[in-house]
Amino acid sequence: MSSFGTLFKVTTFGESHCRSVGCIVDGVPPGLELTEDDIQPQLTRRRPGQSKLSTPRNEKDRVHIQSGTEKGKTLGTPIGMLVANEDHRPHDYSETDLYPRPSHADFTYLSKYGTKSASGGGRSSARETIGRVAAGAVAEKFLQKANNIEIVAFVSQVGSVKMNRSPQDPKFLELLNTITRDQVDAAGPIRCPDETVADLMVKEVENHRDSKDSIGGVVTCVIRNVPVGLGEPVFDKLEAQLAHAMLSLPATKGFEFGSGFDGVEIPGSKHNDMFYYDEETGRLRTKTNNSGGIQGGISNGEHIFFNVAFKSVATISKEQPTATYDGKKGVLAARGRHDPNVTPRAIPIVEAMAALVLADNLLIQKSREAARQIVSN
Amino acid sequence: MSSFGTLFKVTTFGESHCRSVGCIVDGVPPGLELTEDDIQPQLTRRRPGQSKLSTPRNEKDRVHIQSGTEKGKTLGTPIGMLVANEDHRPHDYSETDLYPRPSHADFTYLSKYGTKSASGGGRSSARETIGRVAAGAVAEKFLQKANNIEIVAFVSQVGSVKMNRSPQDPKFLELLNTITRDQVDAAGPIRCPDETVADLMVKEVENHRDSKDSIGGVVTCVIRNVPVGLGEPVFDKLEAQLAHAMLSLPATKGFEFGSGFDGVEIPGSKHNDMFYYDEETGRLRTKTNNSGGIQGGISNGEHIFFNVAFKSVATISKEQPTATYDGKKGVLAARGRHDPNVTPRAIPIVEAMAALVLADNLLIQKSREAARQIVSN
Amino acid sequence: MSSFGTLFKVTTFGESHCRSVGCIVDGVPPGLELTEDDIQPQLTRRRPGQSKLSTPRNEKDRVHIQSGTEKGKTLGTPIGMLVANEDHRPHDYSETDLYPRPSHADFTYLSKYGTKSASGGGRSSARETIGRVAAGAVAEKFLQKANNIEIVAFVSQVGSVKMNRSPQDPKFLELLNTITRDQVDAAGPIRCPDETVADLMVKEVENHRDSKDSIGGVVTCVIRNVPVGLGEPVFDKLEAQLAHAMLSLPATKGFEFGSGFDGVEIPGSKHNDMFYYDEETGRLRTKTNNSGGIQGGISNGEHIFFNVAFKSVATISKEQPTATYDGKKGVLAARGRHDPNVTPRAIPIVEAMAALVLADNLLIQKSREAARQIVSN
Amino acid sequence: MSSFGTLFKVTTFGESHCRSVGCIVDGVPPGLELTEDDIQPQLTRRRPGQSKLSTPRNEKDRVHIQSGTEKGKTLGTPIGMLVANEDHRPHDYSETDLYPRPSHADFTYLSKYGTKSASGGGRSSARETIGRVAAGAVAEKFLQKANNIEIVAFVSQVGSVKMNRSPQDPKFLELLNTITRDQVDAAGPIRCPDETVADLMVKEVENHRDSKDSIGGVVTCVIRNVPVGLGEPVFDKLEAQLAHAMLSLPATKGFEFGSGFDGVEIPGSKHNDMFYYDEETGRLRTKTNNSGGIQGGISNGEHIFFNVAFKSVATISKEQPTATYDGKKGVLAARGRHDPNVTPRAIPIVEAMAALVLADNLLIQKSREAARQIVSN
Repeated sequence: MSSFGTLFKVTTFGESHCRSVGCIVDGVPPGLELTEDDIQPQLTRRRPGQSKLSTPRNEKDRVHIQSGTEKGKTLGTPIGMLVANEDHRPHDYSETDLYPRPSHADFTYLSKYGTKSASGGGRSSARETIGRVAAGAVAEKFLQKANNIEIVAFVSQVGSVKMNRSPQDPKFLELLNTITRDQVDAAGPIRCPDETVADLMVKEVENHRDSKDSIGGVVTCVIRNVPVGLGEPVFDKLEAQLAHAMLSLPATKGFEFGSGFDGVEIPGSKHNDMFYYDEETGRLRTKTNNSGGIQGGISNGEHIFFNVAFKSVATISKEQPTATYDGKKGVLAARGRHDPNVTPRAIPIVEAMAALVLADNLLIQKSREAARQIVSN
Repeated sequence: MSSFGTLFKVTTFGESHCRSVGCIVDGVPPGLELTEDDIQPQLTRRRPGQSKLSTPRNEKDRVHIQSGTEKGKTLGTPIGMLVANEDHRPHDYSETDLYPRPSHADFTYLSKYGTKSASGGGRSSARETIGRVAAGAVAEKFLQKANNIEIVAFVSQVGSVKMNRSPQDPKFLELLNTITRDQVDAAGPIRCPDETVADLMVKEVENHRDSKDSIGGVVTCVIRNVPVGLGEPVFDKLEAQLAHAMLSLPATKGFEFGSGFDGVEIPGSKHNDMFYYDEETGRLRTKTNNSGGIQGGISNGEHIFFNVAFKSVATISKEQPTATYDGKKGVLAARGRHDPNVTPRAIPIVEAMAALVLADNLLIQKSREAARQIVSN
Repeated sequence: MSSFGTLFKVTTFGESHCRSVGCIVDGVPPGLELTEDDIQPQLTRRRPGQSKLSTPRNEKDRVHIQSGTEKGKTLGTPIGMLVANEDHRPHDYSETDLYPRPSHADFTYLSKYGTKSASGGGRSSARETIGRVAAGAVAEKFLQKANNIEIVAFVSQVGSVKMNRSPQDPKFLELLNTITRDQVDAAGPIRCPDETVADLMVKEVENHRDSKDSIGGVVTCVIRNVPVGLGEPVFDKLEAQLAHAMLSLPATKGFEFGSGFDGVEIPGSKHNDMFYYDEETGRLRTKTNNSGGIQGGISNGEHIFFNVAFKSVATISKEQPTATYDGKKGVLAARGRHDPNVTPRAIPIVEAMAALVLADNLLIQKSREAARQIVSN
Repeated sequence: MSSFGTLFKVTTFGESHCRSVGCIVDGVPPGLELTEDDIQPQLTRRRPGQSKLSTPRNEKDRVHIQSGTEKGKTLGTPIGMLVANEDHRPHDYSETDLYPRPSHADFTYLSKYGTKSASGGGRSSARETIGRVAAGAVAEKFLQKANNIEIVAFVSQVGSVKMNRSPQDPKFLELLNTITRDQVDAAGPIRCPDETVADLMVKEVENHRDSKDSIGGVVTCVIRNVPVGLGEPVFDKLEAQLAHAMLSLPATKGFEFGSGFDGVEIPGSKHNDMFYYDEETGRLRTKTNNSGGIQGGISNGEHIFFNVAFKSVATISKEQPTATYDGKKGVLAARGRHDPNVTPRAIPIVEAMAALVLADNLLIQKSREAARQIVSN
């Protein structure tokens, strides 16, 4: 369905060619400073057409807060937000309408809903993510206020070009400590903070674009200043919620946190994160962070970090021998220009989903803490 | 929390040293043939002590249905089930109680709950999974009846020893078509159906066991005969729910489906699953299956398959320089024998969680189908 | 929170003085004919200023569908709807701002949220119900299509003037069989279909208006053509969901169904609804309907009917000796004109909530039926 | 379904003739002192056969905690509890099996589930309430610890015999201030604290029992020491949740709080609860309490009180002309002895449901408070 969260809950609406897209964010604490200026930056980062690498359609995506704030502060009531669709005419893909686009949602949506909307795969459209990003920006405002929580995502792989993202690598760990969104954006259109690798990534994208093809990538995300205790055993472990959030994004193929899939090759003696007493924070911390900041489903106070795999864009200009809805063989080639790699644009979306998960779990943990306090008195 | 699912819902209880562990399964259709004999096999497969590779504690784990069935059939009411804990005395790990076990849930549970139970990390205990497996067995009975849905998991990697699990590999695809649980179990204690690889895996485990260490692995799972249409956009895409389910399991580090993380390196033109008309089923199918049976968050009728990464077991006999709860440096070594690799035992648990996700989504989709039918009349 | 429902789910936003109010309706089946013309009538019925009995503020309340439909049909995706607030300036009640309005939400909202919005009690504003009514209209379209389900509410009591609404009364039962919305609206501003009583009700309202006071009332609602089987034991009995829905409405004080509170005085032998075989429908029906169409939490195919009590409007022009937020004694009298009785305007809101409960339960029951069918095959 | 609550959640299982009935309580704070002795008293109060007025079947109903506690304290993990069914053989009602019992759940359950269990209406059995009462006792322990919250229910009406329960009556308000469970139980088998009325009630029950009939009643419940701020607008107003909880109980027909249905006859000027500054608590309080402790869906710190209507017991010994499942006319008379009035036994069940609603809302409000605190810093 279109709702996510328990105490901090977002509900989204909208597809490509309707009047507007947007969301309702429920459970935002009252008194939080919030205007459209807090939300627009991440929406703008999400927009296509920001570099020569991405599709040139120039969407404007101005957000309009409908409710829930007054004089620049939240009221504690639901925050309605919407972004107009510039073009809400029926689309003009008409010729290609005979074909379900391969590895797109056209076939499954038609099978499930029996309708072929102008938006093709309906809610599988990338415009659906606007509501998430707007909601995530609200969540972030709260997280910053609450614990100075910082969330930064960046591209760590495009095609076969990847930076070292192993928690066994001290340089990577150092990057997680310090990387900022400004640095990510300054690093160029591919949003990979490792300059050398970024250049190769750009070339990788250009090569695929030039051959009318596309290529996938991996987004890595770090969350800093997470308090100990977030996450609800058994079924709502923090990593389970993060995985749910990330794999609800279009075009994702995988999620891993901490040492991830590669970690299975590391013996326990080396993989275990040994404890030490940290004078500065006055509590136990771990020397390494293969756990990715989560142990037993609960945050342990170290940085949370994870990777999300995004497949190669399904819409390509190259001709594809496939079949029509009627089952007739044919050849499909997308018209117009298409984004050969969406990974950089996924950055603010991944950050938004991470923020939504964290905000909800922080609210829940505040309840758990208060209840425990009550009982121990 | 301890509940999972919307229309087909499981709620579990129990930790290592309490009286019993178990679950309530709500939303099971009435009239389904169900006795304890349907549930016990998967519980038995989950048990430790079944081979020289796993820990020798001999748990019996007999399930007792409390409610919801009569004369061997379900009533449509909640099915309560429980499995007694053989040993529900306070534990005798007393000496090691000074230390939070590294990469275990001891520290985070103590931080969150403020209690140090005999069970250490409380609900992070592997015994918690008994309720899941029992519930999953009920879900499977329904899935078999409904669509002859088959779920088979197997070990595809232990440490650095892995079988080819790429959907680009025809042999792997063929394996997904045919593999059965009997074959998996017959393949030896490591539950990897590729014999040559299995032997190497066993050695990998023995090596780590002999050096008082542990090693991780990957479980691959295939779901066959899934109808088109399961999964709910936007936030409850089928893959998002599967990821949530799998990463709610203890010791997991990652989830990927279809082409997964490796798929990001495959260009769109090769990664896209082209459609063709299938005479046998009378509908569109795809020539390849990089999508892993899910497109746009909705099942497309092809096999669903995914991988789950399990980290190296945290409890090892080797000495580990770590810190006590009080922050004092010290050395911890686990007493007794410990499972050097839990991946084979994870097989029925992964299958159970997959079944729970499928059953819930099948029930929801039945509603969607009926509603669409009503409207189109 | 601001969401209601499981498979058919509405989420609302908006308060009195923000930019707009509205809702997202999720889970609407695809292919349903739906335009703004289907939604506007109930919104218009909800509007104040429609008669000399109600407050003259002339709100326009035009609904605008944002998403989820194309060419006059639903897509199966969430339906975003909004209604602009004509006046979204900060309010001008400034003088009375020193006082929490007695029996209003001002004090509790301030206590809970710590904010004093222009909207006073924030989401307790009657404008919040616009989203419910819009969503309810969508639900009704589906219910009509599905089972020709009809929902009609009317005023059965104002102050001490009441019509006979006992299921022991054949005339009342006959009314439940036939009453339509047109008849209700044609019956005059008080929306009571019993003409003689309606005249007395109007006088009752006028009397209280003239003495700068207000008076309460009771809305009775009947739902016809409900299929057998709606409602989910144990905690989600149909009557429990209806009660939840109705008592979530502003100013409500009670809910009763079937024989209700008066029914406790009727002995079992007379209260029990005896079964008989109905040739026309080919199934068991009941001779009487003290059960109000629900037995054991599940609809039995008879008309569902219930009463909702609405208290006297809290905002009155008469002077009230009360206290300021600071605790100082003072006298408060509301400025301007105020609705002395809101019961007639509550009619479409009660109908909307009933429709939302029914649509959600119908969707769920469609799943239960399909699953049972599968198992019995 | 069989789950209730958000952060404090209960899930129940069990029907009349299965092995056991029970529940899982999730979200209980850790460190709370809790043993079976805390739970048994309310279960015992719920038992039939405690007086000559109620049915003589002597159920034992001993509760056994399965999980979630250690050394008499909660662990913060789910608390599994069960009560064995003494008699779990298939029942011996065989002769009457041809008839759906009028105003019972037999017909609707058969229609919905297609199964005719030994338990007849399955989960509509009164034994289902055992899980609620056990869970409620846990909730109460927390509420007492948290705010010294007290919940006391009593019978205020049997048939046409009723005590004054109007909040306009000072004597009734005084009763709400002071009444205890001990006083309720000491008042005799009918559990009405007004002695004169209680005697008449007993006679009312005896009269109906003697004529092989049954009679209904009303339970009134007061909740004291509720903090300001509980309840979540819009759809989860505190009264909406209480109504949901109460109408999920078997045999209920209505819910009203504060002035209730009678309150609609009181003009606003008299119905409004005027504020005054209370020196003792240092905050605004209200002079009257027609609001029943809830304004705008949020608790205002005054006593919460409400009434629940219970219909006359459907199972009576008197002959009833009704129809068989097959639609044949016939006469049904229940064998054995039957409770002519269940209202006194409903007392602990009403208290339990009230406790569950309060505990959940207290947990949620603790989160809201903490979040607001964070933002205001």
